[in-house]
Amino acid sequence: MRSSTALYNLRWWFTLFLLLPLLAQAQDPLPSWKDGPSRKAIEAFVSAVTTEGGKDFVPVAERIAVFDNDGTLWSEQPMYFEVLFSMEEVKRLAPQHPEWKEQQPFKAVLEGDQKALAESGMDGLMKIVAATHAGMSTDAFIARAQGWLASAVHPRSKKPYTEMVFQPMRELLAFLRVNGFKTYIVSGGEVAFMRAFAEEVYGIPPEQVIGTTFQTEFQDQDGKLSIQRLPKLVHNDDGPGKPVSIDSIIGRRPILAFGNSDGDLQMLQWTMAGEGKRFAGLVHHTDAEREWAYDRDSKVGRLDKALDAAKQGNWVVVDMAGEWSRVYPFESN
Amino acid sequence: MRSSTALYNLRWWFTLFLLLPLLAQAQDPLPSWKDGPSRKAIEAFVSAVTTEGGKDFVPVAERIAVFDNDGTLWSEQPMYFEVLFSMEEVKRLAPQHPEWKEQQPFKAVLEGDQKALAESGMDGLMKIVAATHAGMSTDAFIARAQGWLASAVHPRSKKPYTEMVFQPMRELLAFLRVNGFKTYIVSGGEVAFMRAFAEEVYGIPPEQVIGTTFQTEFQDQDGKLSIQRLPKLVHNDDGPGKPVSIDSIIGRRPILAFGNSDGDLQMLQWTMAGEGKRFAGLVHHTDAEREWAYDRDSKVGRLDKALDAAKQGNWVVVDMAGEWSRVYPFESN
Repeated sequence: MRSSTALYNLRWWFTLFLLLPLLAQAQDPLPSWKDGPSRKAIEAFVSAVTTEGGKDFVPVAERIAVFDNDGTLWSEQPMYFEVLFSMEEVKRLAPQHPEWKEQQPFKAVLEGDQKALAESGMDGLMKIVAATHAGMSTDAFIARAQGWLASAVHPRSKKPYTEMVFQPMRELLAFLRVNGFKTYIVSGGEVAFMRAFAEEVYGIPPEQVIGTTFQTEFQDQDGKLSIQRLPKLVHNDDGPGKPVSIDSIIGRRPILAFGNSDGDLQMLQWTMAGEGKRFAGLVHHTDAEREWAYDRDSKVGRLDKALDAAKQGNWVVVDMAGEWSRVYPFESN
Repeated sequence: MRSSTALYNLRWWFTLFLLLPLLAQAQDPLPSWKDGPSRKAIEAFVSAVTTEGGKDFVPVAERIAVFDNDGTLWSEQPMYFEVLFSMEEVKRLAPQHPEWKEQQPFKAVLEGDQKALAESGMDGLMKIVAATHAGMSTDAFIARAQGWLASAVHPRSKKPYTEMVFQPMRELLAFLRVNGFKTYIVSGGEVAFMRAFAEEVYGIPPEQVIGTTFQTEFQDQDGKLSIQRLPKLVHNDDGPGKPVSIDSIIGRRPILAFGNSDGDLQMLQWTMAGEGKRFAGLVHHTDAEREWAYDRDSKVGRLDKALDAAKQGNWVVVDMAGEWSRVYPFESN
């Protein structure tokens, strides 16, 4: 009896010893965040606002967290993925639009003429976006976006775009939700494009996705009802447009905001200007090896004024290269 | 021993007997709904969509319920309460606007000149609404609306407006939420005006209030940030504007919609045109004694086309006089 108990104990301890790392990992809600300053700041903030009776406690109803999408929740290089989608849609739709062969900026897209495309500027880009995003129902557009996401791959990684998401940020979203936060996307991306994948990829339902919007109209064609998208922007959800849509759609000031570029500056300022404990974070793209390295001089996702504001305001600046043990879900931890 | 136990039992049964009606009431989530066809239809619908494994089951994430406000959740006679607020605001603000004494439609409001006011028409009303709703921050406007709601009383009942809400509809909102529904207001009322009381009165948080919106802009005055309201409507959340805002802000089609007037027709149609089990309801104002009786010929809350649609589509039409045992919370049940 005695020796068998001792043996049993030994086995028990040995098993526990083997399991410990697995248990620790299972219990860590942020396994892709190294034990650096950003992780510490996130944990301290969440602990402060969720500790009942503490001076910084925030009721569940007021735990609103807002996240930019491009460059904050997924990559945005070599170009915003939605722009890549628009370009590929122009090519896919070209047979139905023979006039595009002679019409800029479509001609430039079809011929791969980067110079002519660049010359068409913001006006040209808006024409491309309108031609590929409007003139159909919301349901039809979402089906298109989902079709593209299901088959297209990123030019560098050759991975589907929905795998080019930041694993640490997905963990952060889940960690906040477990702690009673309502997580929102507030992004310059078009709202229906983001709704095409946000629930599956980020666990963020359509009603918590805020973005740039086209004008739409209710149509009743012989009893067949639809919401039709018109080629006219009604809200540009970038820069000062972000606090505007937060006020209009959420109607409450967030207590946490995360961005990565100057387009997020006003959202971060608006979040921090409220009373009580607040959190502002920036994803700093410092990782040329696993992702990209860019900030003040980038055309896409320029981070300049917001980086200065972060330094002045002691906001959390995540050093991607140094603080994330994993960037994408397809990498091993 | 024996007789004392018997006595104890008797007392126990007697107490239970006295408590039974109270217990039954506590267990009934819809005590102000008589056992009529509307109540039966509500209960049958909620049971069908929440029964796991049933053919009509709807996952929690898709249980979106939308409610009009004026005439559906609270009264709207003798005039929309927000219009009454605007008129009283004109009087309150008049000392700061000496020019209003000679300027229509303000002159008419200040002099109580109903004829001149009626002649100023929709244009006049919009001027009054803009003058009392814009030119200040969202926070300042909500404080004004709350100030008015805290002191103003309804001209007939002399009760605060926040007590002119329909008790049966409050019970319905709570019943739906207990059953996993997300309850929304989708109303022609201005969104910030409704947010001033919706959470306290209906249990509906700001982010689930959708309404008519003014243009706003983000302002940074020497570091003091605010969202300023401009005197320009950007969305009229009435008629076809309702499915448009539902698509834009919720991004999911509701499975239940409740309204009371032709302004709700498209929202009800849009809800019913989806797949699977759905519910459309109309509050029919048939109660001249306790509330008001009006439908096809009313200037406020006209119910004509939607009543025809309800009959054709077998929607639920609530006969207020016959089906509600209580209309307002201040009445005894």
